Amino acid sequence: MSQAPTDLLTGLLTDLRAAIGADHVLTEPADLSTYGTDWRGAFRGTPLAVVRPASTNEVSQVVRLTHDAGVAIVPQGGNTGMCGGAVPSGDGDQIVLSLGRMRTIRDVDATGATITVDAGVVLVEVQAAAATAGRLFPLSLGSEGSCTIGGNIATNAGGTAVLRYGMMRNLVLGLEVVLPDGRVWDGLRSLRKDNTGYDLTQLFIGSEGTLGVVTGAVLALHPATPVRATAWVALPSVAAAADLLAVLRDRAGDRLSTWELVSRPARDLVVGQGVHDPLPSSAEWFGLIEIAGPAGSNVGDDLEAALGDGLAAGLVLEAVVAGSPAQRQGLWELRERITEAQETLGPTIKHDVSVPITALASLVSRLGPALQTALPGIRPIIFGHVGDGNLHYNLSRPVDLPGESFLARAADLSAIVHDCTAELAGSISAEHGLGSSKAASAAAYKSEVEVSVMRAVKDALDPSGLMNPGKVLTLE
Amino acid sequence: MSQAPTDLLTGLLTDLRAAIGADHVLTEPADLSTYGTDWRGAFRGTPLAVVRPASTNEVSQVVRLTHDAGVAIVPQGGNTGMCGGAVPSGDGDQIVLSLGRMRTIRDVDATGATITVDAGVVLVEVQAAAATAGRLFPLSLGSEGSCTIGGNIATNAGGTAVLRYGMMRNLVLGLEVVLPDGRVWDGLRSLRKDNTGYDLTQLFIGSEGTLGVVTGAVLALHPATPVRATAWVALPSVAAAADLLAVLRDRAGDRLSTWELVSRPARDLVVGQGVHDPLPSSAEWFGLIEIAGPAGSNVGDDLEAALGDGLAAGLVLEAVVAGSPAQRQGLWELRERITEAQETLGPTIKHDVSVPITALASLVSRLGPALQTALPGIRPIIFGHVGDGNLHYNLSRPVDLPGESFLARAADLSAIVHDCTAELAGSISAEHGLGSSKAASAAAYKSEVEVSVMRAVKDALDPSGLMNPGKVLTLE
Repeated sequence: MSQAPTDLLTGLLTDLRAAIGADHVLTEPADLSTYGTDWRGAFRGTPLAVVRPASTNEVSQVVRLTHDAGVAIVPQGGNTGMCGGAVPSGDGDQIVLSLGRMRTIRDVDATGATITVDAGVVLVEVQAAAATAGRLFPLSLGSEGSCTIGGNIATNAGGTAVLRYGMMRNLVLGLEVVLPDGRVWDGLRSLRKDNTGYDLTQLFIGSEGTLGVVTGAVLALHPATPVRATAWVALPSVAAAADLLAVLRDRAGDRLSTWELVSRPARDLVVGQGVHDPLPSSAEWFGLIEIAGPAGSNVGDDLEAALGDGLAAGLVLEAVVAGSPAQRQGLWELRERITEAQETLGPTIKHDVSVPITALASLVSRLGPALQTALPGIRPIIFGHVGDGNLHYNLSRPVDLPGESFLARAADLSAIVHDCTAELAGSISAEHGLGSSKAASAAAYKSEVEVSVMRAVKDALDPSGLMNPGKVLTLE
Repeated sequence: MSQAPTDLLTGLLTDLRAAIGADHVLTEPADLSTYGTDWRGAFRGTPLAVVRPASTNEVSQVVRLTHDAGVAIVPQGGNTGMCGGAVPSGDGDQIVLSLGRMRTIRDVDATGATITVDAGVVLVEVQAAAATAGRLFPLSLGSEGSCTIGGNIATNAGGTAVLRYGMMRNLVLGLEVVLPDGRVWDGLRSLRKDNTGYDLTQLFIGSEGTLGVVTGAVLALHPATPVRATAWVALPSVAAAADLLAVLRDRAGDRLSTWELVSRPARDLVVGQGVHDPLPSSAEWFGLIEIAGPAGSNVGDDLEAALGDGLAAGLVLEAVVAGSPAQRQGLWELRERITEAQETLGPTIKHDVSVPITALASLVSRLGPALQTALPGIRPIIFGHVGDGNLHYNLSRPVDLPGESFLARAADLSAIVHDCTAELAGSISAEHGLGSSKAASAAAYKSEVEVSVMRAVKDALDPSGLMNPGKVLTLE
């Protein structure tokens, strides 16, 4: 009864073509390369094939066929992840399952404040559909023009609105998931409250395709916030940034939607690229504040009052408030163009860490000297989401060190950042997930107890170990 | 090597006394009765013993000893649950583990907006500690004076602030859990963002002690909302209540904190008990609205504007706005005293259902005639959280039917309520959990796929099946 592996694979590809159409089972080298490489080119794998099912039923058929053939699946959305979670191994034995053809917005319910979508719908399309219905879908991140809802769910995406609205897991009401054996779990509920057992929706969110393939979701919409007040401030210290959060909340409550930190080197870099600097201060730290509310709300008054409090308490050195939508856009560019600007300094070693908000100042004051000692002349370009305790502590090479030599130091430089984060009870991946690149590190910083519980969950739901192997948890 | 069961149990009790002190291993019949019966007297069990450990380490020792002896554990907090989740079986073979001695507030961090507590701390104590720090812990429910944080976590408690702040699972940042074999998982993180693998915190929340014993938690605090505007309104229909939600949100955004529905029979009952009626309308439906914000916020203007919109659109018939704290309290009594007032009608058959908000009107219009047909003269006392699609659809007996005869009809009357809820894609337990009383019903309404995944999780984390057996999932 045994078959040669090649025959078995040939049979599988034949069955897959029969199930979803030959046009949607890709095996050409160019296609394999495209789907086998992430957007940055940082991770390269070699898929056995790429399959592009068009419906939940087709996904179910694909997963059942690959499961029965003992072939591993790597689900892929917009392929915009930072940690290689959607990239297959280099062994040519895994199939990439792209959700890119599942792009239907199934339902928008303005009264119920929900939207039901296929996993392959792009984030910006969901934002637009919500806006058309007079509602807000608040998830917002750099890749929103190409990342998909399924990927946002699989990685529990974060971004700039987490302070107010939470991460993706706070925005999902229900899921449709194809399980590792091909069965479909229909958990597409649009309920605000459902207390009937283990929350499988939350279990699948952030599991990075290792427990099943998300094919659809019901998302929660929020009231629109058309009125916005935005400020750019110079700060005396990181500690002041943390303290100012409380001041902002005392005035604006939950209407505070943005509190982002930017270091002077990051500001200088962006201004050097031509972005207007409205506050040419010599301060070491800057911040972007936004308060947003419904039509008719007086968020401008709240902002003025909060800035007044901050200036009086010495938590703010100087401030400028946007007087027009164009000025607001200008202030946002100071924050949003940092990543792109840092590319001009050579290769970047990126970190996405979080600590308790009150430990942010310690993190920054410890890391600076430690990194300079390890590699004199290293250039940290620091920015992040103060309100969440989340910093993107990204490193550029000393001016006279070649990029390759710099990247060769990545492991020990990252160990400095991550060790310090762990000492401050922080997380080495605040919002980017683990994928393949951080799975081993995460296990090293977690307790043995926690890793064993995670492995028990994985083994229970995917006993064959065929769902995105080696992601989140390393291969044993 | 075999021992008689009695010897084994005697040995276990000896070991437990050695571990946590003889005074804290209760075996007197009066104690067993107290801890073996829920607050309403609706569920009665017979514990083998009651143990009251004082620390996480002691809980760990207790669970390790009972695990090794093959004896089941029933964790118990304030014993205020509605579904028997904290009551042991009647077989005298389960140990009640009370968290009542673990009552330390470990830390309050106003800047970081977190509070870290033992599982046995009472909800009202957490609310008070947050208020002292100038922050808000928003969870609020009828039993807040005696329910514990551990129980709130185990059951994913809801209440009157869910509309704005979510359920308990949205308020927990980290957990400390004693696993079924006695190991301690220290997940006491105070991070807003941590994307490093499966969210075990969310998995334990709402699992009703069937996967482990919660011993501590880090909770998220919110900005205080000292300024409140409150109204009581008469409504033309349930559909209007759902539509008014959107109007309220357009004006108040996320500051809308309460939108509760009350039926006329519920209003009449409370008014009959002596509560002042500020709006003696003959409408069939009423509502309680509250908008809350930080100091200086103009929530009164928002409320007036929203009510004006509602009146103009025919969604509100009449409205009265509280002009003082005493008047506000009076309006809240119209809502909060319903449960107590219904007790005067005889025994109550309670339901805690949710449907998509847009299906609330259908639920109500279908259930009324169906229940009258099943039992002419039955008196539904309906109230609930419109914003969450959650109704407490509670039934009182016809005036001439004895209470016992009425309760004998509970199964078929509840089937009518639950079948209709399921047809409208709703949940048969919106916020009360499953415990022992609803586990079988929940399984019947869920898909086989969903129940099998839940069982896989249970078997993976508690392979011996000793953690609160028969709760959430029925015994196989």
